[in-house]
Amino acid sequence: MLGIGAPLLGAPEPTERADAARNRRLLLDTAQQLVREHGVDALTMDELAKRAGVGKGTVFRRFGSRSGLMRALLDHSERKYQDAFMFGPPPLGPGAPPMRRLVAFGRARLLDIEVEGELHRAAEISEAGERYTGGPYNLLKTHVSILLREAGAAGEIPLLADTVLAVLDAPLVMYQMRVLGYDRVQIGDNWEAFIERIVGPRPPVE
Amino acid sequence: MLGIGAPLLGAPEPTERADAARNRRLLLDTAQQLVREHGVDALTMDELAKRAGVGKGTVFRRFGSRSGLMRALLDHSERKYQDAFMFGPPPLGPGAPPMRRLVAFGRARLLDIEVEGELHRAAEISEAGERYTGGPYNLLKTHVSILLREAGAAGEIPLLADTVLAVLDAPLVMYQMRVLGYDRVQIGDNWEAFIERIVGPRPPVE
Repeated sequence: MLGIGAPLLGAPEPTERADAARNRRLLLDTAQQLVREHGVDALTMDELAKRAGVGKGTVFRRFGSRSGLMRALLDHSERKYQDAFMFGPPPLGPGAPPMRRLVAFGRARLLDIEVEGELHRAAEISEAGERYTGGPYNLLKTHVSILLREAGAAGEIPLLADTVLAVLDAPLVMYQMRVLGYDRVQIGDNWEAFIERIVGPRPPVE
Repeated sequence: MLGIGAPLLGAPEPTERADAARNRRLLLDTAQQLVREHGVDALTMDELAKRAGVGKGTVFRRFGSRSGLMRALLDHSERKYQDAFMFGPPPLGPGAPPMRRLVAFGRARLLDIEVEGELHRAAEISEAGERYTGGPYNLLKTHVSILLREAGAAGEIPLLADTVLAVLDAPLVMYQMRVLGYDRVQIGDNWEAFIERIVGPRPPVE
């Protein structure tokens, strides 16, 4: 679900000077825009250099290779997401009731997957073995666990948090969009109904 | 979640004579017992030949390699599972109310994953790209979709069926057992509470 070795939000980048970091962010924002407009196949080192108005050498020095660029882009997008759900405006960030925050958490994730799905899928395949033990997964899981507890969800919260995150698995969502033909709003509505069922009062059993 | 290219239940094996098929089943039952008793690492071509009382050449002729044997074993176990939920006794098989069948479906799967988890995990990693479009996944999904409909579940059944199956993802369950330290009964209870929430009447939203 997360970037290959995506650092946690706020991890320092001690070797990078401030202007280098700014240039890097600029390149990544340009790359993100390229992917959003034309899909992941359009993202080449050449095209990125052209769009960003820098030399191709700069792009290679910065990211090493196209796959290095893809990893950096996924980290970049992951950090933005982490930033938004931890510190951003409600309902995704603090300030809204926990169930509303959970709903927003899923809808924001679905947008990322729709736009950058190939990046997410590539990352999930390559990290298959360590996915659940990695830092990025556990940051999401901690966040979801806190909201589930605040919302008064019953049962084993760690298991419930895994269950909730499984629904946002990038390859699964991409299959639902591309093979089953659902759009993001439909999948988001399913997510919202799911959260309400999971968090709400336990229904009577027949 | 399923065997690498596991054939659907009942797929013919036209090139296999009846006695060859019997010998193959015998070898696979022995291999399954080996894995259940001593774990997947104990399953070698040598050890299987010794246990089954056949020559090593027979085992190699039959499965080609250890990874061929592991694939065959997973197919074998998958067929038994398919057989049980489609034609076996209730509550897993026909005859019980749909919600009870869904609960039994998950608990039986958890037992398989506990015992043969490494096989399942290896299969899921290798099929990462095609998991959701493969025949085995869609057999499970059809089964779960029918039960969800019968149980009167609301919402988009195909999306709901994916959600339900995501909770039984082998790498996820193995992480819950081995890293989080939950046992099969706890995970099964979580599954049962989950199914009751998903299928039961919609709770009032605050």
